[in-house]
Amino acid sequence: MSVSQSATLCPDETALASEPSRVYLQEYRKVRDVTEEICRPLATEDYVVQTMDDVSPPKWHLAHVTWFFEAFVLKPFAKGYKCFHPAYDHLFNSYYETHSTPYPRPARGLLSRPTVEDIYSYRHHVDSAMAHLLSSSRMLETGKDQSEILQRLRLGLHHEQQHQELLLMDIKHIFGMNPLAPVYRSDLAPAEYLDADPLDWFSYTDGLRTVGHDPASSAFAFDNENPQHREYVAPFWLASRPVSNREFMDFMDDGGYERPELWLSDGWNLVRQAGWKAPLYWEESDEGWYYRTLSGRQRVNPGAPVCHVSFYEADAYATWAGARLPTEAEWEVAAQSVPIGGNFQEKHRFQPAPEHTVADHPSQMFGDVWEWTGSAYRPYPGFKALPGSLGEYNGKFMSGQMVLRGGCCATPESHIRPTYRNFFPPHARWAFSGFRLAKED
Amino acid sequence: MSVSQSATLCPDETALASEPSRVYLQEYRKVRDVTEEICRPLATEDYVVQTMDDVSPPKWHLAHVTWFFEAFVLKPFAKGYKCFHPAYDHLFNSYYETHSTPYPRPARGLLSRPTVEDIYSYRHHVDSAMAHLLSSSRMLETGKDQSEILQRLRLGLHHEQQHQELLLMDIKHIFGMNPLAPVYRSDLAPAEYLDADPLDWFSYTDGLRTVGHDPASSAFAFDNENPQHREYVAPFWLASRPVSNREFMDFMDDGGYERPELWLSDGWNLVRQAGWKAPLYWEESDEGWYYRTLSGRQRVNPGAPVCHVSFYEADAYATWAGARLPTEAEWEVAAQSVPIGGNFQEKHRFQPAPEHTVADHPSQMFGDVWEWTGSAYRPYPGFKALPGSLGEYNGKFMSGQMVLRGGCCATPESHIRPTYRNFFPPHARWAFSGFRLAKED
Amino acid sequence: MSVSQSATLCPDETALASEPSRVYLQEYRKVRDVTEEICRPLATEDYVVQTMDDVSPPKWHLAHVTWFFEAFVLKPFAKGYKCFHPAYDHLFNSYYETHSTPYPRPARGLLSRPTVEDIYSYRHHVDSAMAHLLSSSRMLETGKDQSEILQRLRLGLHHEQQHQELLLMDIKHIFGMNPLAPVYRSDLAPAEYLDADPLDWFSYTDGLRTVGHDPASSAFAFDNENPQHREYVAPFWLASRPVSNREFMDFMDDGGYERPELWLSDGWNLVRQAGWKAPLYWEESDEGWYYRTLSGRQRVNPGAPVCHVSFYEADAYATWAGARLPTEAEWEVAAQSVPIGGNFQEKHRFQPAPEHTVADHPSQMFGDVWEWTGSAYRPYPGFKALPGSLGEYNGKFMSGQMVLRGGCCATPESHIRPTYRNFFPPHARWAFSGFRLAKED
Amino acid sequence: MSVSQSATLCPDETALASEPSRVYLQEYRKVRDVTEEICRPLATEDYVVQTMDDVSPPKWHLAHVTWFFEAFVLKPFAKGYKCFHPAYDHLFNSYYETHSTPYPRPARGLLSRPTVEDIYSYRHHVDSAMAHLLSSSRMLETGKDQSEILQRLRLGLHHEQQHQELLLMDIKHIFGMNPLAPVYRSDLAPAEYLDADPLDWFSYTDGLRTVGHDPASSAFAFDNENPQHREYVAPFWLASRPVSNREFMDFMDDGGYERPELWLSDGWNLVRQAGWKAPLYWEESDEGWYYRTLSGRQRVNPGAPVCHVSFYEADAYATWAGARLPTEAEWEVAAQSVPIGGNFQEKHRFQPAPEHTVADHPSQMFGDVWEWTGSAYRPYPGFKALPGSLGEYNGKFMSGQMVLRGGCCATPESHIRPTYRNFFPPHARWAFSGFRLAKED
Repeated sequence: MSVSQSATLCPDETALASEPSRVYLQEYRKVRDVTEEICRPLATEDYVVQTMDDVSPPKWHLAHVTWFFEAFVLKPFAKGYKCFHPAYDHLFNSYYETHSTPYPRPARGLLSRPTVEDIYSYRHHVDSAMAHLLSSSRMLETGKDQSEILQRLRLGLHHEQQHQELLLMDIKHIFGMNPLAPVYRSDLAPAEYLDADPLDWFSYTDGLRTVGHDPASSAFAFDNENPQHREYVAPFWLASRPVSNREFMDFMDDGGYERPELWLSDGWNLVRQAGWKAPLYWEESDEGWYYRTLSGRQRVNPGAPVCHVSFYEADAYATWAGARLPTEAEWEVAAQSVPIGGNFQEKHRFQPAPEHTVADHPSQMFGDVWEWTGSAYRPYPGFKALPGSLGEYNGKFMSGQMVLRGGCCATPESHIRPTYRNFFPPHARWAFSGFRLAKED
Repeated sequence: MSVSQSATLCPDETALASEPSRVYLQEYRKVRDVTEEICRPLATEDYVVQTMDDVSPPKWHLAHVTWFFEAFVLKPFAKGYKCFHPAYDHLFNSYYETHSTPYPRPARGLLSRPTVEDIYSYRHHVDSAMAHLLSSSRMLETGKDQSEILQRLRLGLHHEQQHQELLLMDIKHIFGMNPLAPVYRSDLAPAEYLDADPLDWFSYTDGLRTVGHDPASSAFAFDNENPQHREYVAPFWLASRPVSNREFMDFMDDGGYERPELWLSDGWNLVRQAGWKAPLYWEESDEGWYYRTLSGRQRVNPGAPVCHVSFYEADAYATWAGARLPTEAEWEVAAQSVPIGGNFQEKHRFQPAPEHTVADHPSQMFGDVWEWTGSAYRPYPGFKALPGSLGEYNGKFMSGQMVLRGGCCATPESHIRPTYRNFFPPHARWAFSGFRLAKED
Repeated sequence: MSVSQSATLCPDETALASEPSRVYLQEYRKVRDVTEEICRPLATEDYVVQTMDDVSPPKWHLAHVTWFFEAFVLKPFAKGYKCFHPAYDHLFNSYYETHSTPYPRPARGLLSRPTVEDIYSYRHHVDSAMAHLLSSSRMLETGKDQSEILQRLRLGLHHEQQHQELLLMDIKHIFGMNPLAPVYRSDLAPAEYLDADPLDWFSYTDGLRTVGHDPASSAFAFDNENPQHREYVAPFWLASRPVSNREFMDFMDDGGYERPELWLSDGWNLVRQAGWKAPLYWEESDEGWYYRTLSGRQRVNPGAPVCHVSFYEADAYATWAGARLPTEAEWEVAAQSVPIGGNFQEKHRFQPAPEHTVADHPSQMFGDVWEWTGSAYRPYPGFKALPGSLGEYNGKFMSGQMVLRGGCCATPESHIRPTYRNFFPPHARWAFSGFRLAKED
Repeated sequence: MSVSQSATLCPDETALASEPSRVYLQEYRKVRDVTEEICRPLATEDYVVQTMDDVSPPKWHLAHVTWFFEAFVLKPFAKGYKCFHPAYDHLFNSYYETHSTPYPRPARGLLSRPTVEDIYSYRHHVDSAMAHLLSSSRMLETGKDQSEILQRLRLGLHHEQQHQELLLMDIKHIFGMNPLAPVYRSDLAPAEYLDADPLDWFSYTDGLRTVGHDPASSAFAFDNENPQHREYVAPFWLASRPVSNREFMDFMDDGGYERPELWLSDGWNLVRQAGWKAPLYWEESDEGWYYRTLSGRQRVNPGAPVCHVSFYEADAYATWAGARLPTEAEWEVAAQSVPIGGNFQEKHRFQPAPEHTVADHPSQMFGDVWEWTGSAYRPYPGFKALPGSLGEYNGKFMSGQMVLRGGCCATPESHIRPTYRNFFPPHARWAFSGFRLAKED
């Protein structure tokens, strides 16, 4: 099995200029294939269940990303396009209230039909229609809509990449809560067991910094990364690497989960109510801590970044360590000089791993774990959502959530960039979420 | 497809006397086959979901009835029996707290594994072991345990028959709440659309009546049908047939669901909170009322017994009609002179149907719909539960539930008898439950 | 302070025949006074709070019983009666849906207004109007309504007596859950601390027994005690006294609250979820078990009947003891030959107490604790609710509850009779509820 | 009745230097008196109830602010101080987990005891002890603790002022949800009914701005206003006044509460679930919209700032109006040049009122309504919470809440300043919360 999309979404600029639709069709096929490759190891039963409200059944993901192209590209722009099934516009609309009535999220796991096979047929139906639309002759006919079509297509591909990561998160949860401890893939790339390099700090001077997506760039960015703007950033220090499992176990051993003074109030209430004693997926045995991974139960790797912690746990750890989380501006400033690369989806490891730190910039900024920042997810000054129903993509979630940065071991490498803003509610733990410390000068 | 078990569980007495284990093995195979035939039309996905806490995924039913034989026959009595999987004793224990820790009921639908295929393997593993145990040579070795083994086997077969009905109820719910309105079987026996015969009343004089299972009979009965005892029954009238859909629509048209004076207090609270306006599975369209059946959406059949109503609705209708529900003793007294027969599982209709009434006894006492009685499910005087964990089978549910009588279109005909006590909480509607009126002299 | 109503509701028959309204007015005043005497020890704050949905603030009780006379006697029958406040018909209607919209029960404790003083004014307003209506001259004018008026008045007085007991139950809960352990009355009659007499059994032969209110009697009974009817009662034994605290502690010491095999399924779920380890109001200390009483915290009295247990606990104890609870028919048969008397409200003890058993009949059948029976609260054969809104008094609660018999230390002695049917849901513990064992021949 | 504290908390600097404890004692008495004056119109019953989890019974407030002085000043610093009651440290601890176990917030309204009188005794006990401690002779003895004592005293006074506002909010809720529509004070200063002046905009240039409490100032500030720091603020426009009731009714008339595209996702879910159709306390009648005020039911005043709206409603309105909410930095920059003054607690109006706008700065920045900003409540860069248990005062609430600025008609004027950061969860409506629009250049 081989998932390779390294070039995906970074198309050849020359080809793009001359034959954009051909290039896009190539990209479309690559991304769509990767999604199906991710699902290949699943049994039919694994496609169906929803283990908590946040999780969606894998077959729902497969259909929803397809619906996205149908609803926003084919229906409005492909002349004579025939819907695969009239009910799907309801069933696979996630949350676009201005488009149609979305099927209730917590009930996604109650639907045995459409079957997995039906949904693959749906995918192929839409794939054919997309190929047809993107053929040169049809593209010409679309006239002045062509640019809008290609923009929506590009959005749809980034959307599908997001759901690739969600698929891996959700599959991990579906397998991870099962008493039989099933294995998703036994051929995943193993990580070396070793301790992390000693924690070091990088210093950043103060100044007016530019944050957000460069308007001069032709690269893709979501609406929420705009507009680019200036922020004053005071001097700060950033840790050379994320907090490791070993360090987090020190926090646990020091009573971290029992000391209210370390916690935000909402976090402390949750710790007591939910009985949290360790990150999600951790299980204690006589020989110490184990965790569930997509390759099954494994000993906790001391040097790997701690993962599957909530913002509350990240914040409590930082308080315990006499530090704090970086703001998203600080993180972005630091990331601007770090080359993109690391433990991403393409590595087929699907688990954070230890990595040796380097001298000239913070390590593991990209990949491994999404890093909780101390910034609430709010609009940038002057933010404008996309027009129409696509405006519901990001903007309406700008309350009650925190920003995470940098991508993780389930994110496609081609999907990430320094300005990328991910977001989850502060209690969420099923994402591959860790954190890195910062401190004042 | 053909489900035939008419002879099941009514074995040839002579053969039984000479070679009981051979006869039982035959019965075992018949019952087990029927269960699998019921599941044959399902897609793999249909086996997995749990649409409400009361519903279990079909694959869970398949495993649980198998576990019953493993836990109560093979493990204690089959020397050298090897468990199929150590975790199954937890996963497929429904509620036998003194046996092992049952897996939480509301989480049955969160388990994608074991797969459907795994569960069929489990069935075959247990079936082989059962065949081996029931072979003449092994049976001899069991010595004085033989009688206990055969009694538990018989209980296990009746248990599996109960789950055949539960499977049909749960499949109906899984399909019935799906917006795609899937069809379980399109080849089910259709019912004629016609009006019910006019309602008539049968009169019963008072007297000391014998109720419960005859201790002189060798026929099977559950512990809760014992001991047989006497009850004084005052004179009463019993309706010649169950209340029909047409009659129930009259109740609805007369504001039945909006008039608190007709309802028990708990029922009225539920009506308002849940927004009930009709029986479960009913859907109103411009052309009138439709309902979901296992063959898909159909017009409501005016002459068929109303079905999928709660005890509260049955009671409210009776109040509206100036009548009441019969007690379980009254029902049993009337049923003693009615031959068993009717619209049962073997008819492959799986939906109540109109039937012409007869002159000499109430019609449709058996089959079509379980009939809510006015009796709370409580132990008979002198009731003793079975010894050991099997004592949890029935006795511990004797609070908060009402008795239903007579079997339904999903019950195997060989499973029913006049003394049979079914029970559900007063709010339950997903069983094939209807009712029949009674009144005072 | 002195609460004396021994003669209440047992009026002089001769006086009643000649001057019924005068006699009733006397009774009215006595009952109304007792209610206010019960509230006299309260601080204003104690009148206001609602410590759980089942509890009503004392001021609400004071107003509701007054509303009962206003709504069902004064408004329909007292010419020119002026309502005290138009909103009270909403605020103090408990559950009479056909009369007006009841104010939501769980929100009774959110109302700081009307004040306690307002409510006493309301009482006096209604008391004056009742006195006026019951004056000889006005009574004459009512003509053929007179009998209905007096019947409703009598119902209203029994209703107010029920609320006297509820007041004591609710005050006990309000004080009992307060960390300051406040004392309602320090002058309550103390009970001797002693062990109960050894448990003995009384034998009853079988036969057709008459159960329910004698239609030839002029004494009051609720609709739910009617109609009198025959039941066949098999031979049984009844315990000579209720189960004592000492015996219940033996059950606790034997792991009673940790053994699922002793419990009804609903009861076991509740035990685990609520963490029950002892009856309500019990608190363990280094010196053993204490309980909250209306005189404050006291050592558990070993010989007093166990109190504040649910039906589930009563049933589990009986299972543990190899016995069962009596049916309500059995209890009534036994009670028919027992003189009424015992530890009632008039004793001003408000706590069950030990009492020596007697030779010729079961002891403590009346008073001390309401005794859970094994009978679900369902209508007697031929039951008819009162006409109109008063029909909602009892009948609509005939599902989901169990019958209790015999009255308790908070019940007025004049309020009880052998046919009296009290009822609570099986989980309720805040009533003065205990139990007595029965067994088969 | 007269509440006057205009000079409070702005003590004479010279007197302060020479005799600080005398000056502070004066301030202490003023603030404590105002709190009691606020409660004077209450009936005893009004002190007791808790109408939702967010609301505390007034008697709880009276005790809690007293407990604050006892726990943080008297116990650690007043030699020989005797606690009023040992249980109060549990009952009246709001949320200081490191100090003692707080009594559960949602159960505050279940406590009828201690009585209101007990709590006033508690206040007087603590007041005497505070007067004694602050006497010159005792103060000398405290030696180097003196500064800490005075700092904590000052914090306690500001704390009590916060609870004065909470008292008015909670009293409004207690009265506002009562069907009898009780009046708190009928002598409150009435507002003129008039339309707001036309909305105008003030322009602000960009630059590096200083935000937060000036470290050179001796004036009081909470820890969360620190440290003062620089932020880059882009050019923006700020509305000349808050959004008025008239304008908000235009939003309502335009379907504001029915259009998902205007709402944040969490807000829209809440609107549907809670059935919001107008601000809290609004009631529609045939003659239009009314609202509950502390003087009873009144017609909505078109020119007054809209009040009792959640952050979600404020944000939805802003979206509808093509604008946005200001950030807290923008608000503070604008407020720096606005003199403090307006419709505060001292005006005894307790309701926002119309006010004519002025030419040279935005109007009604202070008083009338707290203004929701678009900023999540997070720590300033370099924030340090107070040491010890007092560190739980503010810092632990820095997740899930939004910042509000400027004070309201229930805030003491002496309590407010441009740097003051108030915070509530985005769904909260029972504070006197309104909002003002901002927009980009």
